[in-house]
Amino acid sequence: MLQPEPGAMPAAMWAFAYGPDGIVERKAITLAEIPALRAKWPCLWLDIAGFGDVETLRGLGEMFGLHRLALEDVANLQQRAKAEDYGDHEFLVLRMVDPENQQETEQLGLFVGKNFVLTFQERPGDCFGLVRNRLQDPSGQMRKRGSDYLAYALLDAVVDAYFPVVEKTDLRLAEIEENVLAGRALDRVVPELHSVRRCMLALRRAIWPLREATSTLVRGEVKHFSAEVWPYLRDVHDHVVQLLDLLENSHEMSSSLMDLHLSTANNRLNEVIKLLTIISTIFIPLTFLVGVYGMNFKHMPELEYWWGYPACLALMVAIVLMMLRWFRKRGWL
Amino acid sequence: MLQPEPGAMPAAMWAFAYGPDGIVERKAITLAEIPALRAKWPCLWLDIAGFGDVETLRGLGEMFGLHRLALEDVANLQQRAKAEDYGDHEFLVLRMVDPENQQETEQLGLFVGKNFVLTFQERPGDCFGLVRNRLQDPSGQMRKRGSDYLAYALLDAVVDAYFPVVEKTDLRLAEIEENVLAGRALDRVVPELHSVRRCMLALRRAIWPLREATSTLVRGEVKHFSAEVWPYLRDVHDHVVQLLDLLENSHEMSSSLMDLHLSTANNRLNEVIKLLTIISTIFIPLTFLVGVYGMNFKHMPELEYWWGYPACLALMVAIVLMMLRWFRKRGWL
Amino acid sequence: MLQPEPGAMPAAMWAFAYGPDGIVERKAITLAEIPALRAKWPCLWLDIAGFGDVETLRGLGEMFGLHRLALEDVANLQQRAKAEDYGDHEFLVLRMVDPENQQETEQLGLFVGKNFVLTFQERPGDCFGLVRNRLQDPSGQMRKRGSDYLAYALLDAVVDAYFPVVEKTDLRLAEIEENVLAGRALDRVVPELHSVRRCMLALRRAIWPLREATSTLVRGEVKHFSAEVWPYLRDVHDHVVQLLDLLENSHEMSSSLMDLHLSTANNRLNEVIKLLTIISTIFIPLTFLVGVYGMNFKHMPELEYWWGYPACLALMVAIVLMMLRWFRKRGWL
Amino acid sequence: MLQPEPGAMPAAMWAFAYGPDGIVERKAITLAEIPALRAKWPCLWLDIAGFGDVETLRGLGEMFGLHRLALEDVANLQQRAKAEDYGDHEFLVLRMVDPENQQETEQLGLFVGKNFVLTFQERPGDCFGLVRNRLQDPSGQMRKRGSDYLAYALLDAVVDAYFPVVEKTDLRLAEIEENVLAGRALDRVVPELHSVRRCMLALRRAIWPLREATSTLVRGEVKHFSAEVWPYLRDVHDHVVQLLDLLENSHEMSSSLMDLHLSTANNRLNEVIKLLTIISTIFIPLTFLVGVYGMNFKHMPELEYWWGYPACLALMVAIVLMMLRWFRKRGWL
Amino acid sequence: MLQPEPGAMPAAMWAFAYGPDGIVERKAITLAEIPALRAKWPCLWLDIAGFGDVETLRGLGEMFGLHRLALEDVANLQQRAKAEDYGDHEFLVLRMVDPENQQETEQLGLFVGKNFVLTFQERPGDCFGLVRNRLQDPSGQMRKRGSDYLAYALLDAVVDAYFPVVEKTDLRLAEIEENVLAGRALDRVVPELHSVRRCMLALRRAIWPLREATSTLVRGEVKHFSAEVWPYLRDVHDHVVQLLDLLENSHEMSSSLMDLHLSTANNRLNEVIKLLTIISTIFIPLTFLVGVYGMNFKHMPELEYWWGYPACLALMVAIVLMMLRWFRKRGWL
Repeated sequence: MLQPEPGAMPAAMWAFAYGPDGIVERKAITLAEIPALRAKWPCLWLDIAGFGDVETLRGLGEMFGLHRLALEDVANLQQRAKAEDYGDHEFLVLRMVDPENQQETEQLGLFVGKNFVLTFQERPGDCFGLVRNRLQDPSGQMRKRGSDYLAYALLDAVVDAYFPVVEKTDLRLAEIEENVLAGRALDRVVPELHSVRRCMLALRRAIWPLREATSTLVRGEVKHFSAEVWPYLRDVHDHVVQLLDLLENSHEMSSSLMDLHLSTANNRLNEVIKLLTIISTIFIPLTFLVGVYGMNFKHMPELEYWWGYPACLALMVAIVLMMLRWFRKRGWL
Repeated sequence: MLQPEPGAMPAAMWAFAYGPDGIVERKAITLAEIPALRAKWPCLWLDIAGFGDVETLRGLGEMFGLHRLALEDVANLQQRAKAEDYGDHEFLVLRMVDPENQQETEQLGLFVGKNFVLTFQERPGDCFGLVRNRLQDPSGQMRKRGSDYLAYALLDAVVDAYFPVVEKTDLRLAEIEENVLAGRALDRVVPELHSVRRCMLALRRAIWPLREATSTLVRGEVKHFSAEVWPYLRDVHDHVVQLLDLLENSHEMSSSLMDLHLSTANNRLNEVIKLLTIISTIFIPLTFLVGVYGMNFKHMPELEYWWGYPACLALMVAIVLMMLRWFRKRGWL
Repeated sequence: MLQPEPGAMPAAMWAFAYGPDGIVERKAITLAEIPALRAKWPCLWLDIAGFGDVETLRGLGEMFGLHRLALEDVANLQQRAKAEDYGDHEFLVLRMVDPENQQETEQLGLFVGKNFVLTFQERPGDCFGLVRNRLQDPSGQMRKRGSDYLAYALLDAVVDAYFPVVEKTDLRLAEIEENVLAGRALDRVVPELHSVRRCMLALRRAIWPLREATSTLVRGEVKHFSAEVWPYLRDVHDHVVQLLDLLENSHEMSSSLMDLHLSTANNRLNEVIKLLTIISTIFIPLTFLVGVYGMNFKHMPELEYWWGYPACLALMVAIVLMMLRWFRKRGWL
Repeated sequence: MLQPEPGAMPAAMWAFAYGPDGIVERKAITLAEIPALRAKWPCLWLDIAGFGDVETLRGLGEMFGLHRLALEDVANLQQRAKAEDYGDHEFLVLRMVDPENQQETEQLGLFVGKNFVLTFQERPGDCFGLVRNRLQDPSGQMRKRGSDYLAYALLDAVVDAYFPVVEKTDLRLAEIEENVLAGRALDRVVPELHSVRRCMLALRRAIWPLREATSTLVRGEVKHFSAEVWPYLRDVHDHVVQLLDLLENSHEMSSSLMDLHLSTANNRLNEVIKLLTIISTIFIPLTFLVGVYGMNFKHMPELEYWWGYPACLALMVAIVLMMLRWFRKRGWL
Repeated sequence: MLQPEPGAMPAAMWAFAYGPDGIVERKAITLAEIPALRAKWPCLWLDIAGFGDVETLRGLGEMFGLHRLALEDVANLQQRAKAEDYGDHEFLVLRMVDPENQQETEQLGLFVGKNFVLTFQERPGDCFGLVRNRLQDPSGQMRKRGSDYLAYALLDAVVDAYFPVVEKTDLRLAEIEENVLAGRALDRVVPELHSVRRCMLALRRAIWPLREATSTLVRGEVKHFSAEVWPYLRDVHDHVVQLLDLLENSHEMSSSLMDLHLSTANNRLNEVIKLLTIISTIFIPLTFLVGVYGMNFKHMPELEYWWGYPACLALMVAIVLMMLRWFRKRGWL
């Protein structure tokens, strides 16, 4: 059933109707105004932000002939990225990074039909600024191409927005590595690594199914992308694969860093224990010795001789020297 | 052979016979009443709870022409989820979560024929409440569609019932993570993680083969699902894949948590050993020194001087200060 | 070359010749008696135990037209399970659990031709008792079906005999888990786990290639199994996959148990070291203090005052209390 | 858009125009001179070093009819290796080792058309010296073959240049292994292993996608390589697979070395702790004993006997001997 | 280019020309004598040991029409095992165990043409003794079959020669396991395991590509093996897969042994630390106590009472007993 998530924002629609001859941009358009735009312009991009308004969704569904299941997927968050062919329109779900708050991703539903592109995002704020600029540019080829090229441009923008986020995890790993090698902030290393891994896990969860979706497009299994757009889709797919490569790399890097850190921490512990052992091994026997001559037996002849004390001190010095030599031979000093 | 497991419950049958014109619900129906219902209504759903009554099973097998092997699979628990085509009917086995006691799963056998759906569950209590309500709703499209759509709705209910269970393991992991990061209840972390892993293992064992089964359905290799129902089956398959994604994610999360915990525990051990080493390294030499002046040699000149005791104390203070400085330089304090 | 392994037992043949009309069972049959049986009955099952007698093997090979390589595979143990099509007969090699001594597996070679089944086992004693009983049962359908159904029944018996063995490893793991969680018999945990892993490794090595073999049969790539028997073969294949699922599960379980155990052992070590540290940290400074007042300096004013001793004791109590408070604050007590 | 990376070098072009009849080499050729060369010679190799000059790139793109996306890939570094078919030309991107500074790789873009090969590298300095020599050699077959053979030769040079780099990581691992087994430089082992792993990760990231690219060529999915060149491409592909094999091997080796090192370090720690325990276990009881006879009680009869002191010494010697015997029995000495 | 490795041995050729009618064996044959043999006999096997003589290689290449790339592969060592079809001949490269020094493998190049088999090995000494004997045997079927059967026999010999080597690593693992379980030679376990792993890695690197090569042959993608020989090739392939199974098994075994060993070593360390803790925990407080009564305060009333000393001793015994009881309760004794 078409049930928006609780707390979803009301739908705000932003329309771009364009063709080779020009472009009309309308912010906050209403459902009733859409048919006129579709009639007049060859291509319409409708960007809906917020799913809170069921009526709008239903109205759009009827107007553009969207499949009930696809519409439900749009409204129910937590979808897995996928590309599905519903006969007279293509449906894609993706997760999109918010370029301003790179920690968060939001769900993007994208419909491509013969002369329209619909994008449904959870809330305003997206990575489509460049696409909007290119649409406004009269000399660009954006307006001359159809809805499939626009869909490609949007996809490309979504994928490219992941690169700075992925590179940031790389930077964080590099920083951790520097700290480990310099022996700094060692108690922060593991929580920090854990946090980076969480990020990478979230990213991989968002990007991995994207690979399957773009791979569907690249195999040409969808009808609404013309052959001219295929090389561009292949390019997008290559970028997705490259993102996964980078993540895989970071994952291996984080494992290696964990090994490095644990071994460093272990080395330090070993040194501490070695110090304890050296101190104990030297002083415990000496303490025993001085204890012997602290006993109160009546008949202890050594105590009476004038050379008793110096001899005892000399013996202790000899023991210390022997021990030090032995430690040095074992490579402990 | 058709041998119910020992201790199986007697079979209780619950029939829904429906068509676009209406619906008849009959609890505790007997074998003899079924043919009349089949003759009158276009579609029959028979929900059998308990496999203890071999005669009923055999009777149903003959009445609906079920394959002997499929019937055996129904009665023998511990089957692996699968979808099999037996010519004039489809057979599916699944594991179903009991929505009231989410720790337990029971086996569900599902037969789909031209105008019937049979479900065999181990015991009463299932996740089909919503489906029954939709059948009772005269305005819904459930009654207008055939047995394949009912089968889809049941499958969907089974798969959706897994989501709260999977999300609960996520919540438990999040709770453990919070404890680890806050350094609380550390001796409970590993048993708790072990218990979550057990749950995840059981869930994956139930869901993984489900993926193969729904994938068989999606590839359209089965005849009893019409093309109209295919997008719905694809939707179910997507949900199964999403469940596995979530589980995979939780699995990686639990590994990362284990690393985090072990490293935290290690850090604490290192601090304890460091403290031991500092205390020992400072006091063992001092104890030796006071031992020296506790010896009872007759001729120990230092003991006679009036400044002997204060000098000894001063020496000890100097040693302590030197050591503290050395520890500080090594970053131990 | 046809070279039996050294120490192989002489061949003992056990024949079942049957058809819808009846059955003849002959223990210790000789080569010369076989042609008469084959002429009279539609189907012949020859069960050969022991490969020590090359002449018998060669004689059977010629009589039934067996391929030289297949015959060599029968005689040479340590074969990998496989199913091979030699034109006029099918050849399977499997490893079979001895139901009486479940630790051991023996090699089973199985030939299926148009009207014969030959089974070659290393030594007498197998899991075919149920099949023999069903052959003797006049009302069963065993006699009415051909050699392919008999071959299925034998395969099924071999596969089903693995289930109790696999379940036993599960039981052993459950027992280890109980011990670990209760903190019992901790020094036995790892050797025990190692031993269970050995068992699982051996089982997987026996069952994994079986999966490929039955998968060959299920794909219908073999001619000697009729379409009626296919659902049965699929059933056998499902059982094999289920066995591997169970083993995989046990494997993950054993890893998780190892983690649990190591962490438990670590916890105990940490507690031991913490105790050592607490005792040392409290008493080493006190021992130093009493050492100070055990020195024999002439001029130690504290020693002369009447309140010296009580003050010293009070100081020590104060130190102990401070330390205990500090330990409590750090959560060590 | 065609946007060179910031800081890219200006383009320097180096042309080789050749045919069976001869060869013309032109360093620092300009765009305007190219058409004349193409008209006169059957095959042209243009080697462009530096992407800083957008006009040159655009001019080459128009002159040779290169696809806009391919040209963008050339200018944007950090591409993943791939082979793409653009109808009238083939496009490959690779990473190439600089033979003089083996730590660094640079991006190489390679276009193969009917009678031209274009190579775009980031900066001057490459591994094509041998190819240039073979082109200059009048007796070689290089000049007699077409542009596809030249492209193969360049690919082969790129792949072969990886072998010394991969072998160097092997040598570094062998050196680490020697150190570990000899117990030398143990605190350098893990950072060193970490650094080798980084190298291997970078190499695998460069070579792995290369495998997919050459595999595309080998499957004959590209039109611009004639059937005669296929065996050569297969040879290149085999080399790439061999490189990955070597890397995989080194990876396993590094894991095994890490295990070996950790276990060695652990052994040493255990010995240190064992020494500490032996010393403490022997001397702590003795120190207690001498403490007893250092007490100042008025009535301690043992102190008065003449044999008190020798008896005490004898007791201590006996304790030490007993302890040594016990340690020897436990295998600690 | 055809460049033999530096230090390669000169080529020594050993010819077997045979047919159903007889056989001629010629050691140290020259190039000039070969055409006569080929003309007279239906099948020729030329075994070349040593690649040092480029002229011989080139001469053979021309005489038998071998492809230039294949000939280069023969002369350049460190090839990956593969099977390649060059139209009028098949080319295989393998690594072959030297049966006398099982630690070493050498490269074997094998050409199969219509009526010839050429084998190129690095140096004399191989595992073909049995094949040569079977060729000499007039009653065997070796001479009656063509060059493809001979090639199979050689392949089979190469593969079978790996079995004793693989089994030897198993034996070494079994020996290590025995030592670990008996607690013997514990400091040798990890280096020993490391060395076994090296062996397994080298074996897997030699055998793994062999699997791909024989799999190519089994799929019937090569023309020079007749249908009659296919079952034999399948047999060879099965053996290769079995070798890999054994290696995989040994790999898992070695991991399990490592776990077992580490946990054993850990157990021992824990016991050592436990002993240290028990000794310290008992004696450190006692030593403090005797230190108290060793202080020289003037006014210590306890020292004056006649029962002071016995009471002190009794107190100490009580403390020891209490501690022992506490340790026993915690399960440390």
